[in-house]
Amino acid sequence: MAYFQSKPVAGRHFLQIPGPTNVPDRVLRAMDNPTMDHRGPDFGKLGKALLEKVRHVFRTEGPVVIYPASGTGAWEAALTNTLSPGDRVLMCETGWFAHLWHEMAGRLGIVTDFVKTDWRRGADVAQIEQRLRDDRTHAIKAVCVVHNETSTGCTSRIDEVRRAMDAAGHPALLLVDTISSLGSIDYRHDEWGVDVTVAGSQKGLMLPPGLSFNAISQKALKASETAKLPRSFWDWKPMLAANATGYFPYTPATNLLYGLDAAVDMLMEEGLDNVFARHDRHAEATRRAVRHWGFEVQCAEPRHYSSSLTAVRLPEGHSANALRATILEKFNMSLGNGLGPLNDRVFRIGHLGDFGDLQLIGTLGGVEMGLRAADVPHKAGGVQAAMEYLSGNA
Amino acid sequence: MAYFQSKPVAGRHFLQIPGPTNVPDRVLRAMDNPTMDHRGPDFGKLGKALLEKVRHVFRTEGPVVIYPASGTGAWEAALTNTLSPGDRVLMCETGWFAHLWHEMAGRLGIVTDFVKTDWRRGADVAQIEQRLRDDRTHAIKAVCVVHNETSTGCTSRIDEVRRAMDAAGHPALLLVDTISSLGSIDYRHDEWGVDVTVAGSQKGLMLPPGLSFNAISQKALKASETAKLPRSFWDWKPMLAANATGYFPYTPATNLLYGLDAAVDMLMEEGLDNVFARHDRHAEATRRAVRHWGFEVQCAEPRHYSSSLTAVRLPEGHSANALRATILEKFNMSLGNGLGPLNDRVFRIGHLGDFGDLQLIGTLGGVEMGLRAADVPHKAGGVQAAMEYLSGNA
Amino acid sequence: MAYFQSKPVAGRHFLQIPGPTNVPDRVLRAMDNPTMDHRGPDFGKLGKALLEKVRHVFRTEGPVVIYPASGTGAWEAALTNTLSPGDRVLMCETGWFAHLWHEMAGRLGIVTDFVKTDWRRGADVAQIEQRLRDDRTHAIKAVCVVHNETSTGCTSRIDEVRRAMDAAGHPALLLVDTISSLGSIDYRHDEWGVDVTVAGSQKGLMLPPGLSFNAISQKALKASETAKLPRSFWDWKPMLAANATGYFPYTPATNLLYGLDAAVDMLMEEGLDNVFARHDRHAEATRRAVRHWGFEVQCAEPRHYSSSLTAVRLPEGHSANALRATILEKFNMSLGNGLGPLNDRVFRIGHLGDFGDLQLIGTLGGVEMGLRAADVPHKAGGVQAAMEYLSGNA
Amino acid sequence: MAYFQSKPVAGRHFLQIPGPTNVPDRVLRAMDNPTMDHRGPDFGKLGKALLEKVRHVFRTEGPVVIYPASGTGAWEAALTNTLSPGDRVLMCETGWFAHLWHEMAGRLGIVTDFVKTDWRRGADVAQIEQRLRDDRTHAIKAVCVVHNETSTGCTSRIDEVRRAMDAAGHPALLLVDTISSLGSIDYRHDEWGVDVTVAGSQKGLMLPPGLSFNAISQKALKASETAKLPRSFWDWKPMLAANATGYFPYTPATNLLYGLDAAVDMLMEEGLDNVFARHDRHAEATRRAVRHWGFEVQCAEPRHYSSSLTAVRLPEGHSANALRATILEKFNMSLGNGLGPLNDRVFRIGHLGDFGDLQLIGTLGGVEMGLRAADVPHKAGGVQAAMEYLSGNA
Repeated sequence: MAYFQSKPVAGRHFLQIPGPTNVPDRVLRAMDNPTMDHRGPDFGKLGKALLEKVRHVFRTEGPVVIYPASGTGAWEAALTNTLSPGDRVLMCETGWFAHLWHEMAGRLGIVTDFVKTDWRRGADVAQIEQRLRDDRTHAIKAVCVVHNETSTGCTSRIDEVRRAMDAAGHPALLLVDTISSLGSIDYRHDEWGVDVTVAGSQKGLMLPPGLSFNAISQKALKASETAKLPRSFWDWKPMLAANATGYFPYTPATNLLYGLDAAVDMLMEEGLDNVFARHDRHAEATRRAVRHWGFEVQCAEPRHYSSSLTAVRLPEGHSANALRATILEKFNMSLGNGLGPLNDRVFRIGHLGDFGDLQLIGTLGGVEMGLRAADVPHKAGGVQAAMEYLSGNA
Repeated sequence: MAYFQSKPVAGRHFLQIPGPTNVPDRVLRAMDNPTMDHRGPDFGKLGKALLEKVRHVFRTEGPVVIYPASGTGAWEAALTNTLSPGDRVLMCETGWFAHLWHEMAGRLGIVTDFVKTDWRRGADVAQIEQRLRDDRTHAIKAVCVVHNETSTGCTSRIDEVRRAMDAAGHPALLLVDTISSLGSIDYRHDEWGVDVTVAGSQKGLMLPPGLSFNAISQKALKASETAKLPRSFWDWKPMLAANATGYFPYTPATNLLYGLDAAVDMLMEEGLDNVFARHDRHAEATRRAVRHWGFEVQCAEPRHYSSSLTAVRLPEGHSANALRATILEKFNMSLGNGLGPLNDRVFRIGHLGDFGDLQLIGTLGGVEMGLRAADVPHKAGGVQAAMEYLSGNA
Repeated sequence: MAYFQSKPVAGRHFLQIPGPTNVPDRVLRAMDNPTMDHRGPDFGKLGKALLEKVRHVFRTEGPVVIYPASGTGAWEAALTNTLSPGDRVLMCETGWFAHLWHEMAGRLGIVTDFVKTDWRRGADVAQIEQRLRDDRTHAIKAVCVVHNETSTGCTSRIDEVRRAMDAAGHPALLLVDTISSLGSIDYRHDEWGVDVTVAGSQKGLMLPPGLSFNAISQKALKASETAKLPRSFWDWKPMLAANATGYFPYTPATNLLYGLDAAVDMLMEEGLDNVFARHDRHAEATRRAVRHWGFEVQCAEPRHYSSSLTAVRLPEGHSANALRATILEKFNMSLGNGLGPLNDRVFRIGHLGDFGDLQLIGTLGGVEMGLRAADVPHKAGGVQAAMEYLSGNA
Repeated sequence: MAYFQSKPVAGRHFLQIPGPTNVPDRVLRAMDNPTMDHRGPDFGKLGKALLEKVRHVFRTEGPVVIYPASGTGAWEAALTNTLSPGDRVLMCETGWFAHLWHEMAGRLGIVTDFVKTDWRRGADVAQIEQRLRDDRTHAIKAVCVVHNETSTGCTSRIDEVRRAMDAAGHPALLLVDTISSLGSIDYRHDEWGVDVTVAGSQKGLMLPPGLSFNAISQKALKASETAKLPRSFWDWKPMLAANATGYFPYTPATNLLYGLDAAVDMLMEEGLDNVFARHDRHAEATRRAVRHWGFEVQCAEPRHYSSSLTAVRLPEGHSANALRATILEKFNMSLGNGLGPLNDRVFRIGHLGDFGDLQLIGTLGGVEMGLRAADVPHKAGGVQAAMEYLSGNA
């Protein structure tokens, strides 16, 4: 039974929402160290080493700033540091989080072009290219893409977006949200020419929520010199100035930084490519189970399958929320709900972060037993299908 | 990856040996509180309340003493407090732990009658009764039975042993080892007329190893007044004297006592009968998987099936140790090895303590995938069989 | 030795900066619980109870919003939710943090009147009143005051500021920063007619940094309806809408909320008035030590003495930073540095949060031994003076 | 407020009994790692490394066995592994713990010669030598000495005891209790020719109670081959056999072993000689405070002053227990009580383990303020005297 569970339940809760993810003990233990003087000499050493080390996870050699704030704030930072009121940006409606980012841009006084999708695939690269080609005056200042859309389980091809921008010869900045992909799905800030990468602590980085990140290209830095959106808390300039010696312009989230230090070590020890392969393998096993049950995954485009979560469409006439409630009640597992128009239509299985084969089997077992308990028609044997795939690829 | 794992492995380790079991967070957090003055006033309050509360788990109204020592010590305490050098006891060789207790008795100068079994069932009640009937002079001072034999997964019927002793009209003490049953399998110290119940912290009590217990009947207390085996650390007398005010005669394992306080609360909140039913259900699901795979459980007598662990016999020519090594290597799960003559012949699945359905599915999934990876012939679908049972009984 | 100390040092580090403060074990243990589904039913119960409970600490019956961000962000929230670009506010330069808030306002496009002080007292109430009286057109939209100026150890009299505003008959909002006073120094959001109270987690609330707060009056809420500063992350409206059912519009800092739950309980169990009296007593003991050593406290106005920290002025020709470095090196204690113009001139002793008499004696002992080790002329016996006061008032 | 405090008290409790000591965070965090399979391959690696590493603390190259039991058990192990019923040993009554060890020997059937002292000094070496010289038949099989008598704060000179035994040409074994000295006071198992060193986890080793130790000489090992005292749990033979590959014959206290691993690292990083010097310095500072107050330390022989604790004699007519109760109530500090005949006559200050200068100042401050609060006549200024010494020697 966990501390805040309202009834006694034996065994560890399965937190299989697509983030926050299960925090590994090594990270929790690091976070448990006493808060230290954030202006003292030892902090500077920690800060410098950590700000350097975290770059590897973004695959960048440029600066990464760390906010003592959750991921939504890092979206705001990416926009306010690079844009001015009335600037135009091209966004791509891949799902609920793209929708929220779009809403935020509007609230901040940014004009948005919004490329639609059916929420069953990643960003529409062809349309992005076309819109950029059409924008002869280069009114569009930035292209904003969600790398891994947490609401649908569709991963946009950022490499293709980059190529499309290059093909169109368009100078817009490329801003990418990797909140549910960083540390889980292959991502390359420098190689793909991303200008601002937005990330959060509570998914592939295996931390509780409370830290967020901007990885920043030189081009983005230059843009920030003239960007006019008002900003203070999110302003890169004092942050980068203080970071140069390992410090922060205001109180950092010290204990989460300890956890980040441990988490980055863990990712490096396993090896980023191994980490990505592990997530790919778990995602494929999950999809095999889903298909065996007779359901569709929300992502309709195999090249866009997400490796960190799978959104599952329930047959018409069945409530995904009722199913999730049954599974929580009977099997002590939390699954992600459908967001926006997908509410009650899909449920989402998170298989990211500090996660192993047997946890996946338990997770899929909980879904399959829940389907039966909730009387959702399905073909039994999905777990078996997943196991066959996993044991053939162990 | 856990702290002491020799290579990086993502996800939580599955510790499915039949104890030590997975320590729940609530217990770990309690143990993390600062060590306190074991002679101060607050300790006395804690001690009194805890010594009272822990009795519920043994279903006794008599005293329970708590040693800052692992379970093996509590065996020694049971013997040295009640017996004199040269005393005769009747023991029952239900498996490896009964064998070890028997060895200990010999080393302490006790003469033993050892009722044999084939290690595939619990204590042989008929033979016990016969031996007692044959002992006209009442030379036998105690009957020693392991309630749940951790090496075989066979649970002796203590209620029947009691009835046999009564039927034989024999005054011997009844000493019972419940190290791997207490808090997992129905057990009733008072109702079954047990004189000394031996227990440890690291199984159904969900603590790390380091505490052990003797629940003591009035008859056992009386026997201790004349028992001549030398004893000091294990001596009940100073322990009970100090316990009367909530203290201990020497330094107690303070932080484990904090954990015990939390663990007993958890058992009481769930309700002991619910706890037992949960273990019964998990054991039955496990056996269904085992049979589906085409294997035998080590316990050949259904009335003696253990609800806290299942020992599985591998077909001739297959190494249980090689299988366990494969499962540890590929699937990050520890299973129990075969002990003594069962070495390499059986492996043991622990399904006790703080344990839920999805952890069981993950556990059985790890076994089934391991069987495939280790090329042990089996019929796939054992996990499915377990799920069918569980979801029909959720 | 703490985890990130660069050399082995025995014993617990004394973190006596004026925040972050020493996190008590009870709070750390609460934070260690597994991250939970922030959209699940148990979270809603926790959220509702916590959002209700935290109001007591602000002494308000109105809403308190909680940001997953550090305190600086809550300043920004207070401004962006209530003001429009070009609005005029009256601020009071009580020290470094007032200066930073003033800078922030400028960056956000707010016009500021800045009432100066000599950084040795709280806000100048007479001048505030005069400026408001002079503002016949009510161009001033808000008065911004730092309750407890962490850089100087001067506490502004918010009750008097309120009375001055009322006397001037001025409708400006009253925004108050309580980052280093809330939970340490008497503060009354409702009674003093404060419109927005800004607070952070890492001082009197005894948590690590990472949460910040706005307590909001009805008048401020109404102002937010027409306030035009762009805002999204900090926007009260979606926050309050989600809070109504115990949830948050974006991922909250779950584990810090667990800690907040424990911390508010601790404050309530001790009783807020007892908490304030404890801080008052420690502050007076500290000042007696300082005076005995022959130094001045930075705060020149006894009515403005801070109860959460004491800034100490070193005699001309002596470096406060060298002294702090000596104390860190030889006595394993972190003290606060002088900020801005006070750099190297003062050091700051934090005596707030989870803090007891003996920790204060250790703290003052470290200062006195450090003065000797660093050859700063002083009269020995400051600790003795503090002890005489404390033991007469224990 | 700690978890089990019966009333809310702010600030960290000062646990200044002479053990258990304050467990450092690094040790607590290590202990928090998940319990692992004590028969798995990673455990063997941990076990081997740890059994090797711990020898440094004893300054021995021979074997050290680790019991999952508190220190009292290690006394019993030392006796039962080396002696036979009716054997004669020479013990030295240095205080309460020597008395308890003597009682234990009697209960185990060992005949004891008990060299008396006035409880104000260490073992009487001259008498030991004389008794051994008088023992022409070498009936005495062992000399048992408490290195640091926790009840009196007197440290016996084990080097002199060794020389006395050699001078007498007596072949008895030398058994030494270092429960409150190991890791705090200079101790050399090999160099001083000790045969069995008895130790526990909860003092200088900075762990919670629950582990105890025997360091064993070749001579002691040889004696164990013929020693006839019944033993099983404490038996070295199966322990050493299992230890050879890093394992234990029965379930070890896994999580405490993690903590031991961290604690030994901490001692080695600081350097044992630095650790001892730190304890010497704190003890001298404490005695200066005590003398300034006008009290006597219980130890009347400067060469025997203990560096891990100081027992303080109160003037006639004053109750040490009342003083301790006042200090606990008013200043949240636990001090050690007087044991046996010293009950209510002395109180004991523990200054060992993970302990720094400022904690000592806080501790002595608590005593001095307590003396005043309890109206015990004393000369104020003891803390000042300690600070003068410490800052001259920082």
